[in-house]
Amino acid sequence: MTKILSGIGGIAVGLLVTFVLFGGSLLGAGSAEQDLQLKSNAEAVYVPHGEHDEYYLINSGGHSGQLFIYGVPSMRHIRTIPVFTPDPATGYGFDKESKEMLGGYTWGDLHHPALSETNGDYDGKFLFATDVANNRIAAIDLQDFHTVDMMKVPNIGGPHCAAFVTENTEYLFLPTRFSLPFDDPHASLDDFSEKYRGVMSAITFDQEEKKFDIAYQVALPPWSYDKAASGKLVSRDWAVLSTYNTEEATTNLEIKASQADRDYVVLFNWRNLEERVANGEYEMHNGERMIFPENLDGDIYLVPAAKSPHGIDVTPDGKYFITSGKLAPAMTVFSFEKAFEAIENQDFSGERNGIPILTYESVMEREVDPPGALGPLHTQFDDRGNAYTTMFISSEVVKWDVATGEVLDRHSVYYSPGHLVTAHGDTVNPHGNYLVSLNKFSLNNYLSVGPSHPESMDLFDITGDTLRHLSSTPVNLEPHYAQMVHRDVINPFHVYERDESDPRAVYDQSDTRIERDGDHVTIYGISMRSKFLFDATSERPDVIEVNEGDLVTLHVTNNDFDQDITHGLGIMDYNINFEQMPGQTKTIEFVADKAGVFPIYCTNFCSALHQEMTGYLIVNPK
Amino acid sequence: MTKILSGIGGIAVGLLVTFVLFGGSLLGAGSAEQDLQLKSNAEAVYVPHGEHDEYYLINSGGHSGQLFIYGVPSMRHIRTIPVFTPDPATGYGFDKESKEMLGGYTWGDLHHPALSETNGDYDGKFLFATDVANNRIAAIDLQDFHTVDMMKVPNIGGPHCAAFVTENTEYLFLPTRFSLPFDDPHASLDDFSEKYRGVMSAITFDQEEKKFDIAYQVALPPWSYDKAASGKLVSRDWAVLSTYNTEEATTNLEIKASQADRDYVVLFNWRNLEERVANGEYEMHNGERMIFPENLDGDIYLVPAAKSPHGIDVTPDGKYFITSGKLAPAMTVFSFEKAFEAIENQDFSGERNGIPILTYESVMEREVDPPGALGPLHTQFDDRGNAYTTMFISSEVVKWDVATGEVLDRHSVYYSPGHLVTAHGDTVNPHGNYLVSLNKFSLNNYLSVGPSHPESMDLFDITGDTLRHLSSTPVNLEPHYAQMVHRDVINPFHVYERDESDPRAVYDQSDTRIERDGDHVTIYGISMRSKFLFDATSERPDVIEVNEGDLVTLHVTNNDFDQDITHGLGIMDYNINFEQMPGQTKTIEFVADKAGVFPIYCTNFCSALHQEMTGYLIVNPK
Repeated sequence: MTKILSGIGGIAVGLLVTFVLFGGSLLGAGSAEQDLQLKSNAEAVYVPHGEHDEYYLINSGGHSGQLFIYGVPSMRHIRTIPVFTPDPATGYGFDKESKEMLGGYTWGDLHHPALSETNGDYDGKFLFATDVANNRIAAIDLQDFHTVDMMKVPNIGGPHCAAFVTENTEYLFLPTRFSLPFDDPHASLDDFSEKYRGVMSAITFDQEEKKFDIAYQVALPPWSYDKAASGKLVSRDWAVLSTYNTEEATTNLEIKASQADRDYVVLFNWRNLEERVANGEYEMHNGERMIFPENLDGDIYLVPAAKSPHGIDVTPDGKYFITSGKLAPAMTVFSFEKAFEAIENQDFSGERNGIPILTYESVMEREVDPPGALGPLHTQFDDRGNAYTTMFISSEVVKWDVATGEVLDRHSVYYSPGHLVTAHGDTVNPHGNYLVSLNKFSLNNYLSVGPSHPESMDLFDITGDTLRHLSSTPVNLEPHYAQMVHRDVINPFHVYERDESDPRAVYDQSDTRIERDGDHVTIYGISMRSKFLFDATSERPDVIEVNEGDLVTLHVTNNDFDQDITHGLGIMDYNINFEQMPGQTKTIEFVADKAGVFPIYCTNFCSALHQEMTGYLIVNPK
Repeated sequence: MTKILSGIGGIAVGLLVTFVLFGGSLLGAGSAEQDLQLKSNAEAVYVPHGEHDEYYLINSGGHSGQLFIYGVPSMRHIRTIPVFTPDPATGYGFDKESKEMLGGYTWGDLHHPALSETNGDYDGKFLFATDVANNRIAAIDLQDFHTVDMMKVPNIGGPHCAAFVTENTEYLFLPTRFSLPFDDPHASLDDFSEKYRGVMSAITFDQEEKKFDIAYQVALPPWSYDKAASGKLVSRDWAVLSTYNTEEATTNLEIKASQADRDYVVLFNWRNLEERVANGEYEMHNGERMIFPENLDGDIYLVPAAKSPHGIDVTPDGKYFITSGKLAPAMTVFSFEKAFEAIENQDFSGERNGIPILTYESVMEREVDPPGALGPLHTQFDDRGNAYTTMFISSEVVKWDVATGEVLDRHSVYYSPGHLVTAHGDTVNPHGNYLVSLNKFSLNNYLSVGPSHPESMDLFDITGDTLRHLSSTPVNLEPHYAQMVHRDVINPFHVYERDESDPRAVYDQSDTRIERDGDHVTIYGISMRSKFLFDATSERPDVIEVNEGDLVTLHVTNNDFDQDITHGLGIMDYNINFEQMPGQTKTIEFVADKAGVFPIYCTNFCSALHQEMTGYLIVNPK
């Protein structure tokens, strides 16, 4: 333990690990995998103009609140997609709809993006992500890569543990990182064990309506819940959560949450819980259907796990779940089948808070302990039965055989990896070609931008027997997991269709108009190359004139139905900017609280006369 | 004209231009330039782990309000530096100091970054940028890549035209994109020609105090001013601005600002204006020293330029300035020397608004008209007398000889370039190896992210006789110019030194404390691996307890003086997050307006026990 703690934050440890250079064996040409191995590193990651990357890397943006889209293998940053934080470049959080959706928050802590799945593999429809800081969950529609719904979840303290979906996206399970007062919102920390709970939420998403709902919540013991994973195939009705601070410490967790030799995995049968809820087996609590595990006669169990486990991952065949004590050197493989047997046999070693504890030895399949490896965190998979686990402290990725536990290869990363991701690596069908390690530090890897460094990503070719390091890429703060999905799975559109049912939309210049109702002015406008039209009948059709104090509702429809012709509308000194994508109608609402003459201009370069695409907001003084 | 207008926004035109593939001739090995040419494209842009990019590309982020830092030649996005828009990943705009600096604005339109210069070349000290939307200018200290000052400039309507510095950073000239009411803030657009002015500002920056000031302003005619450039060497006392809408149209500029065959370049002697100001030759206007050009007997002149010029650039030897009518096919080279002669000889072809117009034929050195090239915008230079001009409509970069006007090469870009940049390309010492074209469209160049596409950048090797296309890179919205500076010029530090003079800073755990003064609570805290200490003497040193309605001032010093160990402090549901870089002290201020128990946690991954680096904000109800 002393050894481990002394290594914490000591990047140096990672540097001691052997540097395995370009380990891929060179095979004859033939399969795509072999082709990859025949290329030099430079060639392997180079995507010339006219070709596309093979995979999307959809990267959590952590406390930036956003998603980062990269291409693999080039590792080019393609786009930042705003989710929990306003984004003036697109007007997200500025236009009426997205502003209301954000609910006044100007940041989020986006963890653990999860793609929707059908039959256990990515279906390319939606991406989900949670906001640890403000207890929200969001859905991004992958047809236009825009955030379409956001819900604030009550009774929880940080859905750190991600939104990993069940095999057909029936549920997303959101455990809570912090336990919070349960009945009395002001319960003292002195009464933590009695009056706090760690509430897990079972969330549904209606793909037609594009709306979240809370199916039920579970009032788990007052611990910290870290990561979640859903079962697959044989384990499809089950899900698992890792826990820490089962010591129930309320201060100085650095020491006090690391006392017990074992924390737990929570293992639960979501399909049975769903049935119980349908049968009315819940209590309403703070507006939600709440299940109390101590009242159940099954369906929720604890499995002892090594000290302070962090990551928890289910193998592609659904037979095993793997977790690792981040303060222990070993990964532990647990068998779902053995767990089911233990449940059947009531093979319990005790209980905590009324929840039966399955006997460790009965459920554990294997402990994997690579010599000198420290700080195992997360595990991903390939299509050949191998697992890849990040080691935060020893700064490496370890490749090992799930079936035997044999360590097959190790490769340094630069430096201190948190998550890692392989292509389709958490599905029933991993692709087994690329692996990206998401590293918490970059030190002096890149041109220095001062004391606040980027994080970093290492791309590996994993088609060979050994990991082959292809490239190193900086990344903005701060990835927590990613999804790597094949380009063929994602099918976005590029132009919004005319929507005659939208009363805000204007597709005919003669329909542009400025309407006044008391002190509420509503504008039905058009943006098009290369002008704004707010009232085509006016002498100055690109001028909006209102009175100081008016409420102004400005609808604008982009009448350019051409790919990539996005307009932006900015109003000087009014802190307003929003894009209208091709064919799209957007609305902004503001109070004209400053009198004067304020230029309006197109902020999204749209044509050679973009600079001339202007107008004025005239606010007459009171 | 019809032809040009029909091509506007028609990307297709760009595609018709001959695709010159990999035109670089292969020379024998030897110089760095020749080495570059010997490499394949993939090898030329590949920077392996352990090596650094050769250049920083400091890219304007347009209406994102931020700066994007890339490395050249890898074109990896290293970091986004927040300037005009809050950034929760770093806490910029959340902590007290930066929040006050942003002045309530949550976006900006960052155009035209400009590096500080000494003797006409980059000195690596500061970067300046303007906010077109909200009339601000900002300085970024390149020792830590953080925004250190921001000033709102009165009397102007969009400093689009950038902050290009004089040879020794004496001044930054901010022309105004929109003319605004001058005396009566509510003057009607009907009185535009009489009552509006386009005010140019001469800004100084005190590098010791890190503070902007306004030296003087010039009340130019009511036109739109587009870009600025400062003279060099022989022209060092002069600067030039491009203009459009000298038609003084107030609506439908798409048509009405394109009527006249000639707009103007404003040519002025800033050193003489400085002297005039010193001599009291100004009037105070709205708090600023205002110069009226119609009252002068010199020092400000107009030079006729082709229809609606956009870019304006000065050659490295300072002898010429080049501007191009964006609706004309030609670039025009003007001679400073000839302009000085014309001034000496009073060789005027007339005047506008009391400003003498130099005779076009007397000042013009050469018109350069590459056949079929359309939409010339911006020009950069190499070290061999060549100029490179972007053609927005014909989607290409044209290489031409400044001395002869001979067109030497043309290469398609993908698609529709606005600015371009070469290494040190606007200094007296361009490097002549890399060129990046900043393109307004990307169409289907990259994996699709829906209807809102990234913009794009093409990297060229310009060491050979012809432009050689090396790579294509997506970029977030929306670059307007960039600076490409050699890595040796930039020398950031990595850890903040102890600052015993800072009364907020706490370097000793025993100095942590929570002080109450009425309903104002001040906390002097520490962040360190892996805990927060707000009051080390408390039973729960990581807990802050206040009363509902209290004003809370929270100072936190990062006590880890190790490179790359940044901590973040987030407070759940309080919309608060801010980073503390190694050794740095930051302050956040908020009103505890919600009662309850709110987890505090470290948001910047810092150690294996990062997850345990937590605490609570307890807000007792009223």
